[in-house]
Amino acid sequence: MQDKLTSLLEHLRATAADRDRTGGHAADEKSLLRQAGLLSWSIPARFGGLGKSWPEIYEVVRRVAEVDSALAHLLAFHHLQVATVLIYGNALQQEEWLSATAVHGLWWGNAMNPLDARLLAEDDGEGYILNGIKGYCSGTRGSLMMTLSAQHASSGKVLLAVLPTGRDGIDVRDDWDPIGQRQTDSGSVAFTRVRLERNEILRSPESVPTPFQTLRTCFAQLVLVNLYAGIASGALEEARRQANARAKPRVHADVTSIGEDPYMLHRFAEMHVQATAAGVLADRAAVLLQEAYSRHESLGAEQRGAVALAIAEAKVVAHRAALHAADELFEVTGARGTAAALGLDRYWRNIRTHSLHDPLDYKLAVIGRWSLNREFPEPTLYN
Amino acid sequence: MQDKLTSLLEHLRATAADRDRTGGHAADEKSLLRQAGLLSWSIPARFGGLGKSWPEIYEVVRRVAEVDSALAHLLAFHHLQVATVLIYGNALQQEEWLSATAVHGLWWGNAMNPLDARLLAEDDGEGYILNGIKGYCSGTRGSLMMTLSAQHASSGKVLLAVLPTGRDGIDVRDDWDPIGQRQTDSGSVAFTRVRLERNEILRSPESVPTPFQTLRTCFAQLVLVNLYAGIASGALEEARRQANARAKPRVHADVTSIGEDPYMLHRFAEMHVQATAAGVLADRAAVLLQEAYSRHESLGAEQRGAVALAIAEAKVVAHRAALHAADELFEVTGARGTAAALGLDRYWRNIRTHSLHDPLDYKLAVIGRWSLNREFPEPTLYN
Amino acid sequence: MQDKLTSLLEHLRATAADRDRTGGHAADEKSLLRQAGLLSWSIPARFGGLGKSWPEIYEVVRRVAEVDSALAHLLAFHHLQVATVLIYGNALQQEEWLSATAVHGLWWGNAMNPLDARLLAEDDGEGYILNGIKGYCSGTRGSLMMTLSAQHASSGKVLLAVLPTGRDGIDVRDDWDPIGQRQTDSGSVAFTRVRLERNEILRSPESVPTPFQTLRTCFAQLVLVNLYAGIASGALEEARRQANARAKPRVHADVTSIGEDPYMLHRFAEMHVQATAAGVLADRAAVLLQEAYSRHESLGAEQRGAVALAIAEAKVVAHRAALHAADELFEVTGARGTAAALGLDRYWRNIRTHSLHDPLDYKLAVIGRWSLNREFPEPTLYN
Amino acid sequence: MQDKLTSLLEHLRATAADRDRTGGHAADEKSLLRQAGLLSWSIPARFGGLGKSWPEIYEVVRRVAEVDSALAHLLAFHHLQVATVLIYGNALQQEEWLSATAVHGLWWGNAMNPLDARLLAEDDGEGYILNGIKGYCSGTRGSLMMTLSAQHASSGKVLLAVLPTGRDGIDVRDDWDPIGQRQTDSGSVAFTRVRLERNEILRSPESVPTPFQTLRTCFAQLVLVNLYAGIASGALEEARRQANARAKPRVHADVTSIGEDPYMLHRFAEMHVQATAAGVLADRAAVLLQEAYSRHESLGAEQRGAVALAIAEAKVVAHRAALHAADELFEVTGARGTAAALGLDRYWRNIRTHSLHDPLDYKLAVIGRWSLNREFPEPTLYN
Repeated sequence: MQDKLTSLLEHLRATAADRDRTGGHAADEKSLLRQAGLLSWSIPARFGGLGKSWPEIYEVVRRVAEVDSALAHLLAFHHLQVATVLIYGNALQQEEWLSATAVHGLWWGNAMNPLDARLLAEDDGEGYILNGIKGYCSGTRGSLMMTLSAQHASSGKVLLAVLPTGRDGIDVRDDWDPIGQRQTDSGSVAFTRVRLERNEILRSPESVPTPFQTLRTCFAQLVLVNLYAGIASGALEEARRQANARAKPRVHADVTSIGEDPYMLHRFAEMHVQATAAGVLADRAAVLLQEAYSRHESLGAEQRGAVALAIAEAKVVAHRAALHAADELFEVTGARGTAAALGLDRYWRNIRTHSLHDPLDYKLAVIGRWSLNREFPEPTLYN
Repeated sequence: MQDKLTSLLEHLRATAADRDRTGGHAADEKSLLRQAGLLSWSIPARFGGLGKSWPEIYEVVRRVAEVDSALAHLLAFHHLQVATVLIYGNALQQEEWLSATAVHGLWWGNAMNPLDARLLAEDDGEGYILNGIKGYCSGTRGSLMMTLSAQHASSGKVLLAVLPTGRDGIDVRDDWDPIGQRQTDSGSVAFTRVRLERNEILRSPESVPTPFQTLRTCFAQLVLVNLYAGIASGALEEARRQANARAKPRVHADVTSIGEDPYMLHRFAEMHVQATAAGVLADRAAVLLQEAYSRHESLGAEQRGAVALAIAEAKVVAHRAALHAADELFEVTGARGTAAALGLDRYWRNIRTHSLHDPLDYKLAVIGRWSLNREFPEPTLYN
Repeated sequence: MQDKLTSLLEHLRATAADRDRTGGHAADEKSLLRQAGLLSWSIPARFGGLGKSWPEIYEVVRRVAEVDSALAHLLAFHHLQVATVLIYGNALQQEEWLSATAVHGLWWGNAMNPLDARLLAEDDGEGYILNGIKGYCSGTRGSLMMTLSAQHASSGKVLLAVLPTGRDGIDVRDDWDPIGQRQTDSGSVAFTRVRLERNEILRSPESVPTPFQTLRTCFAQLVLVNLYAGIASGALEEARRQANARAKPRVHADVTSIGEDPYMLHRFAEMHVQATAAGVLADRAAVLLQEAYSRHESLGAEQRGAVALAIAEAKVVAHRAALHAADELFEVTGARGTAAALGLDRYWRNIRTHSLHDPLDYKLAVIGRWSLNREFPEPTLYN
Repeated sequence: MQDKLTSLLEHLRATAADRDRTGGHAADEKSLLRQAGLLSWSIPARFGGLGKSWPEIYEVVRRVAEVDSALAHLLAFHHLQVATVLIYGNALQQEEWLSATAVHGLWWGNAMNPLDARLLAEDDGEGYILNGIKGYCSGTRGSLMMTLSAQHASSGKVLLAVLPTGRDGIDVRDDWDPIGQRQTDSGSVAFTRVRLERNEILRSPESVPTPFQTLRTCFAQLVLVNLYAGIASGALEEARRQANARAKPRVHADVTSIGEDPYMLHRFAEMHVQATAAGVLADRAAVLLQEAYSRHESLGAEQRGAVALAIAEAKVVAHRAALHAADELFEVTGARGTAAALGLDRYWRNIRTHSLHDPLDYKLAVIGRWSLNREFPEPTLYN
């Protein structure tokens, strides 16, 4: 298993620069992740999955992110949708959808972007009719099932649901062309008179989320933390490869090998300390999240708040570690590292692209409210 | 127990500024630490101690450091000397000295400063005669037992030993007057024809330390990490107190309370993230140290190296967190915080004083050697 | 002249640590500054002064601040009050007070603290009666003349005036005991039924300041900039002295002299770059201020805004440079630098004390408003 | 003139993202620069040029760099080669080549890369025969004249010369495909049995450069400084445009417009302060360089050293300002700014590519040698 994973990671690493250049849908690599069994890690054993713990799942996401943060994003978002079903789904829904996921190894997509209010659900008997568009629907291309959020037309409140991606009226658009995270298929999905059945509803507009249910945001945030931490470690590892591949020390350095250049040692140490701190804080948050998750509906607001705080702390450190290492990598390569063919700028383009949905400033403010006022993060779309 | 500790910590906190001003020997406060049973935490139960784990011991050191990093230093150095006996002492030595420590609640001092080669040991039958001086002998004033290191006159190598502090010819000098860490009694100790018996030798000059024995440096370094991390948390807590005690927001701020000042939230968040990372990395290192320690002489060089690396990582983060919070504290208090009577500058003076024995630059270089060259820290006086 | 100044600076440097320890009034040193003719630099030649330009005056303030930022503060505040008379005073007032200043070499003090509204002026014929207290009245002890601001009791508006410090009812208190800037005599002044004559009024409560008059804030802010920049350069110079006085390189460094330690070179470079940038930006702001000042009442709001912006930019850089160098100094000295007798912590205590009246956060916000919104700093008490 | 330049800059700005995407030779834009008369700014009036001062020339380079740092690079390198002729050329050479430059508005290229020793010059009568390759020959494509450096085969020393780019045996290769600075044509030039005449030699292998001649390195370094400073200002200006184009404040911000977001103000202030400091230090260095240049061969080593130091100081600040603003720009745009079509990542790719030829670490070390040891930068290929 470990060997299989290692060789999969090596394959992703070796092809990442090329795939970054071409962008688009990574059908083959998604297939490899599926064949490696990675899609069923979050499916409980009772539904035929591997039933791994969340710390294990986040760790594998981070390892994939080290070599290819776009593929890691797809893998993590798959598990995030599974978590959504585990949190909001009733027993029947879980049984049906998660067993199918385990048996068929199917990918989950989503149309959940909470800031995008363009998708409307109009009452239609016991179900709804969906019309509108959602942006940033990472991973929906190539998925068989998807989660979604929509504005309930009459109440203005939000509902969550699950649909087969192939249902009539759903158009997964190929309109994702960003500077980084290029193979996450984070384009838009258009819904034209799409029927949503009652038993497809995860959360009805009128329901008020319990502390346990608001953990869904924590799961999502911890995905970002591990993607960032993975990019930090991956850029550092790339830096190490590039440095060790250099024949000569830097022109001004009075040393015989680059491994003795005092300033190079400092630059590596700085990257290392930040990447290590990011990983350790991410792991700590995953343990706390697992504990909170295992409480189910007995989870209290305070423990939920402590999890959200730990994730926010880890996110700040990981965000900075990734931006730092992705930029610093070039100090190690020198001018030769800027050849377009190497694509070494992809680490920076990836973290830069992925780090903007939720401004660091407001994550810090949330932490500041705890530190100064002892107010836990309020459960929101981002905390 | 917890209440007793809490009230002891509160007492130390309340008196810290005054004691920082006067400096000198904190006989009363050392007495309180002893009465609280804190001296026997590191003594194994078989010798009558409390037999706490090292993570627990480091945690209590850190909590003391939050309110008074000088007293925490004394407590930690006591345990460091106990660790020295546990690492280097034979069964008889451990039995004798550690049982006595547990029974009488006696304080350990030291004359171990590895960089100070002025203390010489001349052969004298089966023992030695000691002459010379050691500097930075923290905690020796008021101790009943002490560890020491001395240069063996004929071989130039170093021996380690234990002596009663009151032995004839030992003069514990009152010459410690620094800008910070003022009550650590880190003055010099003079030895004039002091007899050292064979059974007081912990490590003879000819012996080569095993990986297990070199853990002694790790124990010492992790003391520093926790003192730094404690100062970081303590300065942050002081900042919180000062902020909450302010009647009004800052003059330029368009908010109704200081807890809503957006920039104040950022400053607290920054202190909080750094202090949290320092604590989490310190805890992780303590767990790794405990695991390595429990291997005793079966400990291999690689596991020892991994412990040293984790401690170095934590030290860099804690060093910076403490300097940052100690300086930043004043942004929260504003000009009123600079009244000499408050003594709020002591956090900075404490960390500044304590952070200089082992330059951060070379700790980073050690980490860089691992990150770039995959070389573990070599066991030295500082790693 | 230059030699005389150099030797005065050297005298201040040599005695600064001792005087920092004792605090209190620096009568002797103030006398030396006076004898060196420094008090008349800002007095126009037509009143018998030296009529130096403001860039020259700020430069000498900065040079004094390099060796003793408390004395530099006194000198700068003297010139600031002279500037106040030049800006607000009528021809008669200028003639009377400034000629007297030039002839007698008298020191100016102040009770101008704009945030302290405790000093009230009640109408009394054509003048006023003053009652109340002002805090932070730097330099008033030992002065013969002083400026003051007071709240006009009936209108709530502020008036500015000049008084002989010795007038009946004025009590200059000896209540200044801070952690830094200890010899600035920045204590409080109490006014008990103090008579203020009509011809002592600089600005009546009903008057609205012109752009030219609001330059007074710019003069005050540029004092702070140059004190900070001087502390930065002074701490760097102290670092250089300490480094060059060291017999040996740092224990871990594989070099033969400290001047070859690669990390020491980086630490000096960092201090140097910041201190240099602070000085260059301070000089640029002084030139712009001189240009704006020379416009007198023809000065427009835009040019005034550009001056205020340049001063704000310089202040941010100088603030950081000073805090950085004052802390960094200890990396150079190592542990020996923490001896209380050396008093090397005074640089940090000085900048820390002096940098808090006007939070950096809101200075940055003012700059941000220009950068993002193209809004010049509004003339306020701090911009 | 000013309007013409403004409209040229606006044209470059408007097309920069597209041209960054396609890369390759910017023939049309180079033509526009030529038509605007910018090529003759450095040509003395006596040769028919505009005879602008170096501060003016560097300023226009910086302004071009704000909108397109690749084109600015070409323009600056043109003037650098002109400076090379002014420094090393004899009266006849200057007359011939610079008059031609002024009359025909011809572009200069180069094959001067000092680290690339592959181009050899063999003695051939009074001249030489050139064989080999030079890399990073920015601007040679499309040039009519070029400077070059070559290793003298028999002595191993370096000669400098000028050649018509079209001479037989010179092959300007189209092999430049980097991640940034994509239109600088910095590919390689191959020389196959190229004849170099005696009167084309600027510096013979046996000559030892005078302090004045070593200013050539200062001219080259100050080009980099201004390109970096321009990128910093340009990225900041782009950030301002993007922010002002946003319809709404950030999702978490409790403000009505983005111009009131307190954290946005801080981010802009930070970019602004750094970019301003970079520009001011660059201008100061240009003034010092002009003064040194005007001394010609009477220039002493000390004044030369002071110029090199000022350039190094400016370079450190500009390097950091550019990397910071280029990265920070995205905090302002949010996720929408990552659309590949906008090409906003070009600022970072440009500075990242251009900042690697001369590692920041060793520039800092040079500054450190001055600050700690009072050693001026030694005249080298980079200082």
